[in-house]
Amino acid sequence: MRSAGGCAVNSIVVSDYYIEGQSFDGSVGVVETQYAEFSELPLDSGLMLSPLTIAYEIHGALNDNGSNAILILHALSGDAHVAGYHEGDIRPGWWDAMVGPGKAFDTNQYFIICSNVIGGCKGSSGPSSLHPSGDRPYGLRFPVVTLPDMVRAQKLLLDRLGIERLLAVCGGSMGGMQALQWVVAYPEMVGSCIPIACTHRHSPMQIAFNEVGRQAIMRDPSWKGGDYYGGASPDAGLTVARMIGHVTYLSDESMREKFGRRLRDKEVLGYDFASIDFEVESYLKHQGEVFIRRFDANSYLYITKALDYFDLRNGLGTLVEALSDVPVDTRFLVIAFSSDWLYPAYQSKEIVRALKGNGLDCTYLDIHSSFGHDSFLVETTQQTHLIKNFLSVTARRLGVKSAG
Amino acid sequence: MRSAGGCAVNSIVVSDYYIEGQSFDGSVGVVETQYAEFSELPLDSGLMLSPLTIAYEIHGALNDNGSNAILILHALSGDAHVAGYHEGDIRPGWWDAMVGPGKAFDTNQYFIICSNVIGGCKGSSGPSSLHPSGDRPYGLRFPVVTLPDMVRAQKLLLDRLGIERLLAVCGGSMGGMQALQWVVAYPEMVGSCIPIACTHRHSPMQIAFNEVGRQAIMRDPSWKGGDYYGGASPDAGLTVARMIGHVTYLSDESMREKFGRRLRDKEVLGYDFASIDFEVESYLKHQGEVFIRRFDANSYLYITKALDYFDLRNGLGTLVEALSDVPVDTRFLVIAFSSDWLYPAYQSKEIVRALKGNGLDCTYLDIHSSFGHDSFLVETTQQTHLIKNFLSVTARRLGVKSAG
Repeated sequence: MRSAGGCAVNSIVVSDYYIEGQSFDGSVGVVETQYAEFSELPLDSGLMLSPLTIAYEIHGALNDNGSNAILILHALSGDAHVAGYHEGDIRPGWWDAMVGPGKAFDTNQYFIICSNVIGGCKGSSGPSSLHPSGDRPYGLRFPVVTLPDMVRAQKLLLDRLGIERLLAVCGGSMGGMQALQWVVAYPEMVGSCIPIACTHRHSPMQIAFNEVGRQAIMRDPSWKGGDYYGGASPDAGLTVARMIGHVTYLSDESMREKFGRRLRDKEVLGYDFASIDFEVESYLKHQGEVFIRRFDANSYLYITKALDYFDLRNGLGTLVEALSDVPVDTRFLVIAFSSDWLYPAYQSKEIVRALKGNGLDCTYLDIHSSFGHDSFLVETTQQTHLIKNFLSVTARRLGVKSAG
Repeated sequence: MRSAGGCAVNSIVVSDYYIEGQSFDGSVGVVETQYAEFSELPLDSGLMLSPLTIAYEIHGALNDNGSNAILILHALSGDAHVAGYHEGDIRPGWWDAMVGPGKAFDTNQYFIICSNVIGGCKGSSGPSSLHPSGDRPYGLRFPVVTLPDMVRAQKLLLDRLGIERLLAVCGGSMGGMQALQWVVAYPEMVGSCIPIACTHRHSPMQIAFNEVGRQAIMRDPSWKGGDYYGGASPDAGLTVARMIGHVTYLSDESMREKFGRRLRDKEVLGYDFASIDFEVESYLKHQGEVFIRRFDANSYLYITKALDYFDLRNGLGTLVEALSDVPVDTRFLVIAFSSDWLYPAYQSKEIVRALKGNGLDCTYLDIHSSFGHDSFLVETTQQTHLIKNFLSVTARRLGVKSAG
């Protein structure tokens, strides 16, 4: 195994480690978030983010020629913790079903990297990080960040890890948008790309839902222009923003299956608005209230704005033209889900058409699923089959050998 | 023209009245809201609403045997002001394109009634009305109201106006749900029913969007458990609730047509979150902020809960059984819109199937439109054609003569 720029690149795989009642079959086991420090990152705005911290987690082992690395990109509320368990945790990382020994992203074969986006709040530099002056967290003094900025930060991390080329970049939702940005920004570095349930730019409806969430946060008196750290947080606003998000992540069909019109606690008519009547209300309230314990309201503002601004074309004319520098041997697997109305299949098809317009090797699948946008997180069986084969063919074509 | 229970039943039609730059061609002209007072209304909850005020507007003239009356029911944020202009107003009532001389609901032929729902805030008794004790507005002391309660109040109003039978009941969205409730609650009183863009019961997704709006209001510190009258109103919460609503009233397609990704004011990268970047954000913010000037937050809570609780079956088994008492000569025109994803066409089809299951005369139309749920307000040309003919045939079958 190759040493990678001073960083330990082997993840902590403890296959015989057990938490009581918790099986680690097929799990990468207990993992730790690592942190890479950089002096600065130039941003699209012309400003410099300095210093820069990137939180990341790695799984599997890098092979001798460093050719088996896969970068996984997370969605709006995700983080670097893609798989395995943090010490003492009961719940694994956000894509644990997909990343591990024998899984879609097989850690016996591939070296997996996942980092927290800049602007986030899970270890990478963001508005809740301490301002360089040391007075207090940035708040809105944190510079505007874009999806290309996030990708540029990931490039810094890969340089640090000594990874010169990626076997694949992959992500769902915002992660898929970053994966596309990767092939445009660093076309020679990417062997294949798996954008899932995403778009090359937000529609007005996607912008609209994000904007309502932002308004909920900014109209919360506790938001205080983003300078709320150390005092009361804008929990009410962030809760409502998350509730809006959750409605858009589900589908009419999955909600009917999941909740129906079941009443909670009581069957009699009569309500005081504080109580919960329908199970779907209980679910949303729970999701909103759990979220405020793990997410920063300002990060929600910064990241959703980055999403809304993103346009893969970036002033380069058509989408076909934007993808014209992608090497012809780059392979693509584009996945959409039938019930995803937030990132509808037509948006994935736009990407596919532009790839085909450049004569690129592209497989497209519209997976039939009732889970809406959440499908990319939960429809793991079908995705495993697709991605496992896709990576296997890609690795064979590129002559990639696993570590070991 | 028949006198109607002590109330003047002719609307104020001033066809030669003009506001500068404002033509009244085909308009009912200047109208005034009228108010009917009642001692009490028994509610589904077992409580009594006492006293009761119903705000209503009327157009056209009742014929000699009172057989040309049509009741129009409004949606969540609507009111009694369905057509014409209030003195000094520039904008007409909410369905002015559909109600007036020669229009779909031709005021030369029919007598049109529209009343504000109880629980509302546009003149009928609601949480912002003064509590009988005289101390201050009801707030949450206002009793729970249901869609059947709203319809029962409308029945009181018709009794007062001396109207024993309706040529038609019609409404879109919540108005359509009330129209359906009318044929179930008072089957012998309804000659025909036109439910538009509605459902016989809310899906979990519809409940979910309403619940997020309610949470936005109730988590606004100014809401104060509903007891905010005389002080600061929960404007932030109500604004966010309305913004959520507006996103659900549009469609992906109509938003792309209307806004695209056009940036407002500036084209350069850089944002402070208080400023508006995309036109769709500006639109939503405007809609939200206009709404708080005309709507009461507690009414939003009461009415959305009434919507979520509504189930036309009301414990009567299947929807077919719920409609089994509807007389066989009652005519139905059920309208849905192709791009309405909030009240999707499948919900209208459920109604149609249940009507057909009872052997009832039902015409169903899924109008192709890009305007989403808002279609029922804006697709007036196609609706005019359909409804005009439907009412004409219904009137002929029932031997209805216009006043005149």
